[in-house]
Amino acid sequence: MIRKEYVDKLVGVLPGAGLDAMLICPSEELLFFTGFTPMMCERFQGLFVKKDGGMFYVCNLIYADEIRTAYGGEIPVYSWFDGDGMVEVVSGILDAQGLRGAVVGVNSSAQAFNVLELADKYEISFRNGKPLLEEVRIRKTHEELENLRHAAAIADAAFEPVLQFIKPGMKEADIRDFLFEQMVSRGGSAPWAIVASGPNSGFPHYNGYDRVISEQDVIVLDFGCVYNGMCSDMSRTVFVGDATEEQRYIYDIVDRAQLAAQEAAREGADIPAVDAAARDLLARYDYAETLLNRVGHGIGYMIHEAPDIKQCNHRKLERGMAFSIEPGVYLANRFGMRIENIVVINENGETEPLNKARRDLIVIR
Amino acid sequence: MIRKEYVDKLVGVLPGAGLDAMLICPSEELLFFTGFTPMMCERFQGLFVKKDGGMFYVCNLIYADEIRTAYGGEIPVYSWFDGDGMVEVVSGILDAQGLRGAVVGVNSSAQAFNVLELADKYEISFRNGKPLLEEVRIRKTHEELENLRHAAAIADAAFEPVLQFIKPGMKEADIRDFLFEQMVSRGGSAPWAIVASGPNSGFPHYNGYDRVISEQDVIVLDFGCVYNGMCSDMSRTVFVGDATEEQRYIYDIVDRAQLAAQEAAREGADIPAVDAAARDLLARYDYAETLLNRVGHGIGYMIHEAPDIKQCNHRKLERGMAFSIEPGVYLANRFGMRIENIVVINENGETEPLNKARRDLIVIR
Repeated sequence: MIRKEYVDKLVGVLPGAGLDAMLICPSEELLFFTGFTPMMCERFQGLFVKKDGGMFYVCNLIYADEIRTAYGGEIPVYSWFDGDGMVEVVSGILDAQGLRGAVVGVNSSAQAFNVLELADKYEISFRNGKPLLEEVRIRKTHEELENLRHAAAIADAAFEPVLQFIKPGMKEADIRDFLFEQMVSRGGSAPWAIVASGPNSGFPHYNGYDRVISEQDVIVLDFGCVYNGMCSDMSRTVFVGDATEEQRYIYDIVDRAQLAAQEAAREGADIPAVDAAARDLLARYDYAETLLNRVGHGIGYMIHEAPDIKQCNHRKLERGMAFSIEPGVYLANRFGMRIENIVVINENGETEPLNKARRDLIVIR
Repeated sequence: MIRKEYVDKLVGVLPGAGLDAMLICPSEELLFFTGFTPMMCERFQGLFVKKDGGMFYVCNLIYADEIRTAYGGEIPVYSWFDGDGMVEVVSGILDAQGLRGAVVGVNSSAQAFNVLELADKYEISFRNGKPLLEEVRIRKTHEELENLRHAAAIADAAFEPVLQFIKPGMKEADIRDFLFEQMVSRGGSAPWAIVASGPNSGFPHYNGYDRVISEQDVIVLDFGCVYNGMCSDMSRTVFVGDATEEQRYIYDIVDRAQLAAQEAAREGADIPAVDAAARDLLARYDYAETLLNRVGHGIGYMIHEAPDIKQCNHRKLERGMAFSIEPGVYLANRFGMRIENIVVINENGETEPLNKARRDLIVIR
């Protein structure tokens, strides 16, 4: 089903952004606007939304029937065949749609090699359209907030069981799989998890699952899922066997930094000030430079979407915005810690942390 | 570990392609060249390989320690911080590396929105570099061929068990999960599967798993995994309960089209002629137009890489090339069929189909 109110909103902001159209390739963004997203391989495809409100879909012939069936005639679907060149055929389609010479925004999943190939051989140019696509949904509706609450509750509910499950000798992958089961069994889809143990916890986006859990490990658990299209994302840090004095000291600071930023995240607050609330607290203990990233990111249809909570994002928090507050301390090749809640400025303009899982210092024995 | 022989090969072809550097973002391509690939989120990152042989990595600060640890000093790592703008910091890094005004190729995973943002605000331009990255590895070595054989054997071995497993009443997802288990238990990693049943089989890249298997279903099973970095990819079509006369007739034609193209795939053969061998056979029975795609794609470090077996790819098959031969007949909203083997031009210049799973018409009762 096309979400006409959001398509209209997008069409309305295209001229102001200097764009003749937006290209939305398969992604959560396409799902958001149209209720459907197909598989994406290396073959160029995507929905074009024009500034006159016209829409059409371009894809390879192998996807055409499936996409036509999904869109049930609501959007015309044009296709190109492997045996012909992509650019040759797509050029003709874009000509027919009046897009020769156009400036087109692209979404987050558009593949650079494909749009560059097109821009290289046809008279069209592309621009970063991702911020504009996020802007049209940056203030969540009541229904979206309800789904965010539910998604957060599913993640929260996985936390107590995983505390019982973690034991030295198991792999990070075992913990990830257990978190997946917990979330899926409660109705979460598309579960994901970072399980960063021991020195890996010092890497904020650690990308492995093979290390074996040992006594004295710090473990950062960062996980979430999707409920009715809306994402959850939470982090807690736990300790195996024991926590050192230094670790207890740092945990307390991270905990207070998270609370400070959560407290600062009020309707109307300057976003850089929210980021600064956590950073300044860490600075008092000389840990500001170990917070390697922004204090938070927006969340909704994608795990990361607008608004980022960071120094260079000069805007104010508004009702309906949903974002993470997740300061951390990262000591490379030693250990790291992070506490993360999703927070929304809710229907009443109140600051509402969606995650309610315990956050005291937990030692797993 | 940097694979210097391949980096040198890439550096050698950059000038001829008019490129000052290649940008390789996290992907199998980065893993191929460097033995490591980090998580990729929306933050710009990638390895730059310059035409003078110099290399450096640019990433967000949250990835810097992890990437530095992985590369152990072999590649300098420069980072930008969330709180500053990406373009502002990366511009300075590119200036210092002498890339102002450069023309840079991009790999398959480069995100359009990021490179467009950079090209919009800094003096640099990007081009499609994917074909060049595939060219340097298009002729597989003996070791790579051995791993392709092993990966194909793992997929083959999952086929007999899945025939015993499939029953009416189960979901496509159940069959997918069973195939995953079969491949993983035999040492395959990164398993994937398309399970397209009933009318879904008419969509070559059907992207769902929810349909319940019924009597009289046609099921296309398309699956594979990774072994020692090399991919497998095979398809078989099976029938539940019974196959109609029409289905038996079409199955025979698809089977013969696959064999015809496989037979035509000789060292030195023109690639369009290999594609035509399958297409011409289908044409004799008026099914040419139901073959919606290329007859095959190259395979190796990625499931899809050069050389594509299609009309517009005007080159010859060479020793060491590995590719699928997978003609099909797709009748939208009715049913479809596909038989797919991976075929290599092996060390002796012989045509060697790697998949040996049975391909007679199978009715599951």
